[in-house]
Amino acid sequence: MNENEIHAMDTKVVTVPLGERSYEIFIGSGLLGRIGDFMPFDVAGRRIFIVSDTNVELYAQNVKRQLHEQDASFCDVLVFPAGEKTKSYESLIRLHEWMLENNVHRDSVVIAVGGGVIGDLAGFSASTIMRGIEYVQIPTTLLAQVDSSVGGKTGINTPLGKNMVGSFYQPSVVVADVDVLKTLPRREVLAGYAEIVKYGLIGNPRFFEWLEDNGQGVCDLIPEVVAYAVDVSCRTKAAIVQEDEREAGRRALLNLGHTFGHALETAAGYDGRLLHGEAVSIGMVMAFELSENLGLCSREDVSRIEDHLGAMGLMTNPSSIAPGLSTSVDEMIAIMQRDKKAKDGKMTFILAETVGRAIVRSDVPDDLVRSVLAKFIGVSVT
Amino acid sequence: MNENEIHAMDTKVVTVPLGERSYEIFIGSGLLGRIGDFMPFDVAGRRIFIVSDTNVELYAQNVKRQLHEQDASFCDVLVFPAGEKTKSYESLIRLHEWMLENNVHRDSVVIAVGGGVIGDLAGFSASTIMRGIEYVQIPTTLLAQVDSSVGGKTGINTPLGKNMVGSFYQPSVVVADVDVLKTLPRREVLAGYAEIVKYGLIGNPRFFEWLEDNGQGVCDLIPEVVAYAVDVSCRTKAAIVQEDEREAGRRALLNLGHTFGHALETAAGYDGRLLHGEAVSIGMVMAFELSENLGLCSREDVSRIEDHLGAMGLMTNPSSIAPGLSTSVDEMIAIMQRDKKAKDGKMTFILAETVGRAIVRSDVPDDLVRSVLAKFIGVSVT
Repeated sequence: MNENEIHAMDTKVVTVPLGERSYEIFIGSGLLGRIGDFMPFDVAGRRIFIVSDTNVELYAQNVKRQLHEQDASFCDVLVFPAGEKTKSYESLIRLHEWMLENNVHRDSVVIAVGGGVIGDLAGFSASTIMRGIEYVQIPTTLLAQVDSSVGGKTGINTPLGKNMVGSFYQPSVVVADVDVLKTLPRREVLAGYAEIVKYGLIGNPRFFEWLEDNGQGVCDLIPEVVAYAVDVSCRTKAAIVQEDEREAGRRALLNLGHTFGHALETAAGYDGRLLHGEAVSIGMVMAFELSENLGLCSREDVSRIEDHLGAMGLMTNPSSIAPGLSTSVDEMIAIMQRDKKAKDGKMTFILAETVGRAIVRSDVPDDLVRSVLAKFIGVSVT
Repeated sequence: MNENEIHAMDTKVVTVPLGERSYEIFIGSGLLGRIGDFMPFDVAGRRIFIVSDTNVELYAQNVKRQLHEQDASFCDVLVFPAGEKTKSYESLIRLHEWMLENNVHRDSVVIAVGGGVIGDLAGFSASTIMRGIEYVQIPTTLLAQVDSSVGGKTGINTPLGKNMVGSFYQPSVVVADVDVLKTLPRREVLAGYAEIVKYGLIGNPRFFEWLEDNGQGVCDLIPEVVAYAVDVSCRTKAAIVQEDEREAGRRALLNLGHTFGHALETAAGYDGRLLHGEAVSIGMVMAFELSENLGLCSREDVSRIEDHLGAMGLMTNPSSIAPGLSTSVDEMIAIMQRDKKAKDGKMTFILAETVGRAIVRSDVPDDLVRSVLAKFIGVSVT
């Protein structure tokens, strides 16, 4: 890779420092058009398996064309239907078969061109074919650029739960080109923005202030503004993941808004009514509400984050889900107790002491959780 | 675990030194009866998923009973049919489902009680459920005690090849009780013995000499004798794996006899005519023959290892396979070129400079390989 070229275009580089598994994230504009520059291996003579979905297949074909010109010995794209249903055993087995039929070997490479679904599926297939081959991520959604590009979580869903099968497996490099976000529906941009807000809330109050001033620019995809937000988000996540690669402790902070959020997503049945980022947006407001009820953060903190998320056009209450969500406090509690983060039915919550300071708690009294749920899902406490 | 107790019973301990993934192998007699002593975690309150097969289910039930008495919050056994066919996607999915239905969480444990098939399957399921939970191996065949208990290779077969899908995943502890080998058919003991001979041949000429004197005692399962052989084998493999956990270089030495051996197994179609260890036994003789033809080892070396393996009752020539194996030089070459170890069709061979000194070579002329194949499978060079 030519360092001068990259600096000339003002590409940002975030290093995810994980010892022998360290890798770099390149963030900027126009990166996709010179993708070969970022590959940390010789393309010539290599077998390259690109995984993508129907939404972003054109980007994948662009990558294929460039690597083909650089004399990859095999380079083709396998396209899956866009959507969460693609994260299945069936897709995983299809991917393995495709690679084996095309003579994958140990120095072959899997490249994911897509959002979180494609990244999780492709990463898991790379980690399990021939006991693990190299893996490159080209995230094409704002959510994937700020979230799944750092941390190495891969996986698929099973009928018994989301992301229940998977691995921790780090990519060799991540290339986040903010230009590709321009074809993303506004609703998806906002869903990604919710995760950006999360990084401010868990540990960076000044970044949250910056977002209060510049959030509109991020969501309007002004290149320098969105690149800055992606850069700070990746750095924040990288610092946390570095301390706790396998999520034994501090990494749990990244789940702010996720205990409530995942339960809302599960109750909604992943039918498109509620995107992951939208669920996290509502879940963060609920986590702040719970924190206030526990005497941690102030009522003003709750209002402040609710106001900002609402002003950006994000959902802050399950009542905004359309068509309406039919659930109950009992159902939500049952779902949360089955969560990967729960232990012997004890729910873990990420709570806020204030904007920019989050903590992990597993000792929240059930009746407080039930009262917050009742307030938000609008049914009486049972 | 009580150190004094273990020393009193003369249990051998091999440490596999892999940094934060280091673990211990306990080798001795009577270990299964006090299995709780070796668990590197509190059994009480933990959910324990034991995986076994129809051959050794009684040992698994014994382990279950003991851990149940130590107040595991869940402890049950899932029994698969004995045999290679169990290493499938179907078994993997069945295992995941069983764990999820029984509320597996991140500090749950998978325990494999069985041979290589069960170890590979259970280890792969442990590495992929909830992105990886703890895993304990209780190998019940001589082959598994000396081979799959060190190195963390897990996996399943696909219609397109053996062990093509899997992971590198280290267990928390391995307990190799030599008493359980007494219920093993003699043929299986001999197949495991072939891998023990391999450790002598690749780097320990004095161990090979010891085996020439004591091989009968190993195969007759005299406890102290077999425990010594398992101990030396595990130490030899541990030293090699430590240098090269992900098989980038030196670990390839462990494949002595495996390039030819795997091809013979594939040609035989895994129908029970040829056990893995038997294939390795023939493959080692063929590798020595090829080494001699290349001017590496001497004709005496070839005879010496052929004599020892034959004296122990192991196959040294494909002509001993019954019913007879129908293959050709071309078919064998084609299979070897598809091997995981091959690169762009270039076959890798582990060759011998002498007994106890092996080297890795990828530049062996095809016609020499063909002439060795022709000599052993008894058909003319095409």
